[in-house]
Amino acid sequence: MRRTSRDIRTANRYDVLRRIIAASPVSRQEVAAATGLSLATVATLVGELLDLGMLTEVGFEDSDGGRPRGLIAVDAAGGALIGVDVAETYVHVELFDLALNVLARADEELRPADSRPEEVVAHIADAVRSVVEQSGVPDERVLGVGVSMPGQVDREGGVSVYAPNWDWHDVPLLDLLAERVPYPLYLDNPLRACTVAELWFGAARGREDVVVVNLGTGVGAGLALGGALHRGITNSAGEWGHTTLVLDGRPCHCGNRGCVETYVGAPGIMQNLRELSPHSPLLHPDDQTATIAALAAAVAEGDHVAVAALQETARCLGAAVADLVNLLNPEMIVLSSWVAARLGQPLLHAVREQVARHALRRPLDAVEIVLSPIPSDPVSLGAATFALKGALASVGQKTAGRSATARRTNGAAGTPAGVAPSTTARTVRSTPS
Amino acid sequence: MRRTSRDIRTANRYDVLRRIIAASPVSRQEVAAATGLSLATVATLVGELLDLGMLTEVGFEDSDGGRPRGLIAVDAAGGALIGVDVAETYVHVELFDLALNVLARADEELRPADSRPEEVVAHIADAVRSVVEQSGVPDERVLGVGVSMPGQVDREGGVSVYAPNWDWHDVPLLDLLAERVPYPLYLDNPLRACTVAELWFGAARGREDVVVVNLGTGVGAGLALGGALHRGITNSAGEWGHTTLVLDGRPCHCGNRGCVETYVGAPGIMQNLRELSPHSPLLHPDDQTATIAALAAAVAEGDHVAVAALQETARCLGAAVADLVNLLNPEMIVLSSWVAARLGQPLLHAVREQVARHALRRPLDAVEIVLSPIPSDPVSLGAATFALKGALASVGQKTAGRSATARRTNGAAGTPAGVAPSTTARTVRSTPS
Ligand SMILES: [Zn+2]
Ligand SMILES: [Zn+2]
Repeated sequence: MRRTSRDIRTANRYDVLRRIIAASPVSRQEVAAATGLSLATVATLVGELLDLGMLTEVGFEDSDGGRPRGLIAVDAAGGALIGVDVAETYVHVELFDLALNVLARADEELRPADSRPEEVVAHIADAVRSVVEQSGVPDERVLGVGVSMPGQVDREGGVSVYAPNWDWHDVPLLDLLAERVPYPLYLDNPLRACTVAELWFGAARGREDVVVVNLGTGVGAGLALGGALHRGITNSAGEWGHTTLVLDGRPCHCGNRGCVETYVGAPGIMQNLRELSPHSPLLHPDDQTATIAALAAAVAEGDHVAVAALQETARCLGAAVADLVNLLNPEMIVLSSWVAARLGQPLLHAVREQVARHALRRPLDAVEIVLSPIPSDPVSLGAATFALKGALASVGQKTAGRSATARRTNGAAGTPAGVAPSTTARTVRSTPS
Repeated sequence: MRRTSRDIRTANRYDVLRRIIAASPVSRQEVAAATGLSLATVATLVGELLDLGMLTEVGFEDSDGGRPRGLIAVDAAGGALIGVDVAETYVHVELFDLALNVLARADEELRPADSRPEEVVAHIADAVRSVVEQSGVPDERVLGVGVSMPGQVDREGGVSVYAPNWDWHDVPLLDLLAERVPYPLYLDNPLRACTVAELWFGAARGREDVVVVNLGTGVGAGLALGGALHRGITNSAGEWGHTTLVLDGRPCHCGNRGCVETYVGAPGIMQNLRELSPHSPLLHPDDQTATIAALAAAVAEGDHVAVAALQETARCLGAAVADLVNLLNPEMIVLSSWVAARLGQPLLHAVREQVARHALRRPLDAVEIVLSPIPSDPVSLGAATFALKGALASVGQKTAGRSATARRTNGAAGTPAGVAPSTTARTVRSTPS
């Protein structure tokens, strides 16, 4: 897995654009300082991005005593990106400008009976069409669509390898989607999408070693180590939800027993509540969302059973988060996704207390534990950044660029590595700056 | 934590030398292909290392149709490196030539009563003096001494932050050592030393994502992610021994309960045996080494209690190794250190079986689990490579180079970042090539 100079160039281009998006307007000198790249390299990469209409020159700033420095900013109108958040119960899609502002949103509900691949693909395609129509962005300005799928995905192959809640195995999702969605497509999973969103726009900006703990129906951990995503050798790193907290404990759908997820995922929290009070009025047996909301409201009112259920959840979660602290020695742990957002500060405080009981002193002293500050959906935001990264990988290829995950709009079989539609590459270049 | 271009240059120099040590003799073209660096960069770095006498030109090879390529090799006589493995019960020191062949060894026993810092330092200094005398290497050719200390270390500060078995806290080890040892000193811990040894010389050569599981009195996991050591934000990553396997389980000296170490460290294995058979003749209550050796011998003879104790240990170890597989998705897990070496193949087979029961399919399919193939002590070998890396960091500095962890030989207080003795830098340059 050697990195070629082409990979390094793409990574540098992405890093430069990311810093400019985060801090527009900004000078080349500041970008060089923030990225550790030489000023000459930054100037070259900025020149390319200016030519592509992704950046624009916006004036000058005085530098102490020296000559004024040119300032550059992202050109928000330089392209549109779409982020697709597929979850167990919904499809949520957002369309962003190049500054990653949301221009349009669309939602589709997924009922348990709707979970065949063709049906999920139809919902995604409808929602993507809806955001493009709402925004009025012409097709040729859509640089790409990032799709976050729960479970394990093979991003190079565009395959949903295993989606436990739907019992999907090896579904060629991008091939199916390419028949319905006329833009370059990029597949990944929500752990990685959330983590990138925190690194770019959230609590982890400028950090190197961060774990984003995703608390929803399923749970997992997005790992940013040394400033970059750690994906693992087959893109399935982060399955912290299926690490053992209680040897021989609660059965898990993965086949193991005592997995972290069975104690702190939404169904696990419902079980914690049920074990404390089998007939609690807070329990909505078929509705996780309603139960977690009722639990949060009851905790706020000081209800004893609710507080005890929160404490028991925090006890398990604290021990499992301490495992991440001891094993990885990160500088920050971000609690993300809907269960963390609902249970909020009371959960955060209880978890901090429990982590302090379980973790070793030195890594404990080095770590901050925070709630995600991202107000909108971090998964669709993160998915859109994957599309941006994909689009940057094809920059500088004169003809239609080969890209690991971008797919032909015609979904042609026999092109497993896919080819980005040439219209996209052309479009980027013809966008006025 | 931006990397400066100087950091990158040091890392590249180290990577180039590492490939040459692994594959001498080798052409610059092969080194460029193996490292992903440009041929021009490799040529420059090789030139520096030739000037320093660390490499030597050894002839030419034919290249298909082209002109012959120059071959380079490490100059084994270009310097000596010392690796110090400090463990709970001994100090083991090896002196290596630049090709990392062992030229001399020395051992000192540490009795429980000898564990004050001054005493441990005296044992280290005696053993270091012994290997230098045995080898006949002149002082000025010793490029540095890498010291591996159990527990948590602050490598920049040269401090043993926490050595649980001796109850050391914040011991300024390198300052104490610098008064007795006249060479540049570099501190780290055995998890990282073992991991580097596997990456350079062991099972993990050429691998990117590897976990080295250290099974001794204490247990831990060295993490190589993306081809480099993951140290964490305060160099304490890898404390897998203190992750929770059994919530509310066996008490651990770290203050937590149910830590992995309490089930699979040598004292934990003794406890597993005791719970199966309280008066087993295999148990030597005050001697871990003798108990593990007796257990291994009894397993080989098919003794039922011994096999059951091994199985119970493997059941716990398998679940805990599966946690590493699910969380990190590595391509390889190496079982290392003395308990793994003693219990050998029977332990390996039982662990593989148990990991398969606990891990998710996709990361399980991607991982190989093996025993360390390194025949000698991987900790002193790894510690010596830290000294080599430190020596390379001062290359190119005209005067005595500032180095993060190298210490003055006079141990002067008030120089927390230390300064490599100028003799070293001079020596390297004056060594004949
Ligand atoms: Zn599970
Ligand atoms: Zn412990």
